[in-house]
Amino acid sequence: MVLVALVSRLGSRLLPFLCAVLLPLAAHAEEVSAGAKVRWRLATSWSATTPVLGEAATRFADELRVASQGRLDLRIEEPAYHKSPHGVLDMVRTGTHDIGFTASHFARGRESPAVFFAALGFGLSDAERQSWQTLGGGLKRLQDALGFQGVWVYPAGNPRLESGLWTRRELKTTEDLRGLRLRVPGETAAALKRLGLRGQNLPLAELGEALGQGRIDAVEWPGATAKELAAANQARYFYPAWQDPSAEVLVLVNADKLAGLPADLRSLLTSAIKGLTVDLQEAGARHQQARLEQITKSKVELKSLSRELQQALREANEEALREFATRSSEFDEAYQERQAFLARWRDWARQGLWPSP
Amino acid sequence: MVLVALVSRLGSRLLPFLCAVLLPLAAHAEEVSAGAKVRWRLATSWSATTPVLGEAATRFADELRVASQGRLDLRIEEPAYHKSPHGVLDMVRTGTHDIGFTASHFARGRESPAVFFAALGFGLSDAERQSWQTLGGGLKRLQDALGFQGVWVYPAGNPRLESGLWTRRELKTTEDLRGLRLRVPGETAAALKRLGLRGQNLPLAELGEALGQGRIDAVEWPGATAKELAAANQARYFYPAWQDPSAEVLVLVNADKLAGLPADLRSLLTSAIKGLTVDLQEAGARHQQARLEQITKSKVELKSLSRELQQALREANEEALREFATRSSEFDEAYQERQAFLARWRDWARQGLWPSP
Repeated sequence: MVLVALVSRLGSRLLPFLCAVLLPLAAHAEEVSAGAKVRWRLATSWSATTPVLGEAATRFADELRVASQGRLDLRIEEPAYHKSPHGVLDMVRTGTHDIGFTASHFARGRESPAVFFAALGFGLSDAERQSWQTLGGGLKRLQDALGFQGVWVYPAGNPRLESGLWTRRELKTTEDLRGLRLRVPGETAAALKRLGLRGQNLPLAELGEALGQGRIDAVEWPGATAKELAAANQARYFYPAWQDPSAEVLVLVNADKLAGLPADLRSLLTSAIKGLTVDLQEAGARHQQARLEQITKSKVELKSLSRELQQALREANEEALREFATRSSEFDEAYQERQAFLARWRDWARQGLWPSP
Repeated sequence: MVLVALVSRLGSRLLPFLCAVLLPLAAHAEEVSAGAKVRWRLATSWSATTPVLGEAATRFADELRVASQGRLDLRIEEPAYHKSPHGVLDMVRTGTHDIGFTASHFARGRESPAVFFAALGFGLSDAERQSWQTLGGGLKRLQDALGFQGVWVYPAGNPRLESGLWTRRELKTTEDLRGLRLRVPGETAAALKRLGLRGQNLPLAELGEALGQGRIDAVEWPGATAKELAAANQARYFYPAWQDPSAEVLVLVNADKLAGLPADLRSLLTSAIKGLTVDLQEAGARHQQARLEQITKSKVELKSLSRELQQALREANEEALREFATRSSEFDEAYQERQAFLARWRDWARQGLWPSP
């Protein structure tokens, strides 16, 4: 309640400033002189051709350039250049880059509480996580989970993309999962292993071929529509994703560099980050719609997960989270806090008082 | 699909520019000279003290002033000054004001298709309407529904506020609704009359007293928390709202004035409007949470609507919409388009492919 009252008094756009209390003062910041051009290096975890996520960085930089009359000029460095899609946090922290686009689980991996702010099986909906961050202490928790100093963290929206599961054979019972060779990125592997799936993290370029040759049985990724269709020729069924309901894009800004910006450019920047939230929601919906129309026209059959499979996956996912919690008190605290918030929120949602998850 | 492809190519922030095709060119626009100060008059439908909606205008103006180094200065005119909370559209159209904050049903009333973009019983969720606007032709439909030239329309977010129903007696069956004297604004009156409720549109200041004296039996409004609590002392039950799941704030900009802005200020303005969407979501969640905590601590009992009541209200609402549709082909077309989009979206949502409504 204290947080709610405080946030309420300050107004939501000041929220990131609350986090600043947790950061050391930027003692060495040098104020940029009025009228001077600011050239910043932006490190991103996604290439410009990545649908939705990649395009967003380009649009963000373009918008800031126009709005600042060229005074705030972001040069985007893609993973192909900096070679470290999972290292964006450290680049911004150490100041080799001024600003970064990434996701929390890229920065800290599956066994950190940071995972609660990225892709997580049966995780919070967009509205739920936004409210947890704003009202339930989630934003402070995220700062703690990332566990670094000197970087400002701005949640920048959620494309609501779902990755789906392409398979060669039909999945009806948990027995069908046993031994299934699945391309899946690291994050959900722990939960899936409990059900006997064998995860493999193949490069995206090899997926269609590997599926066609029967080297793997199923593929999960939220990637490009054209690539999906190529893989679809090798797949017979598409199941909606349970793995990735609400991945969140984070914008990280080096605290020294931010403190050195004139007030107008700082305001421009934070306003553009909020704008990203809306851009990502819209771009995600467009991408999802295009994918569904392509699936409908293809030979792939659109399937729902059976109740049995849903239940089994949900339980395996919770077991994996509880196991992480036994190993780390930091993880456990974040997990408990999230569960408590969620229980209350969904209770209200059931009464119709909140948008349902 | 043509629209989707076009929008996809242009990027979402250019969406409002698509609408410009529908507007006549702003022939008389005068470009503001570089470095000059722009002073705009902003007409709003809500006073600055209105929770969530009123505060948003002040924050919006402050943010633009800082980000533009004072070059874009909005002077806010409240309803108490301009005396016409439902006339904001016309003020912006005729150019007495440069920019306006309002809602579509304020501008065109209950029997216009504009109502689909404001508060509507059992209406679209936030995500649903955003997608209809972006993907399903909704934004063009909204322009048509407002039926005017020379104004740009920007959807600016949804506080997800719900108005609720405060009553003196318990409501279990449709029989309990018959003869109920209810304070309700015009928008939902048509549906409620079908169930025998007697709507009255009393001034907010009189509600607590009228309820306490038994002059009315129930009250519905999304207003201030303190006022709600005062009324709560006169009410025994609180029912969640079905009337108002997704009212949308619109920002209207005079097309001539917008065309006269330098490119950087135009970009600043559209970025700030997107930021509003995020501000309103967060502010709405805070307000809703505060209200629920206050209800929980008060003597008022939090109730759910029975299945019978939900069903009856839903049917009465659809009947009212269908009746409007028989009277106006314009209304009918928008209604059919919305129903078709919704049917497809919810089918996908049921499969888990979209966030559920």
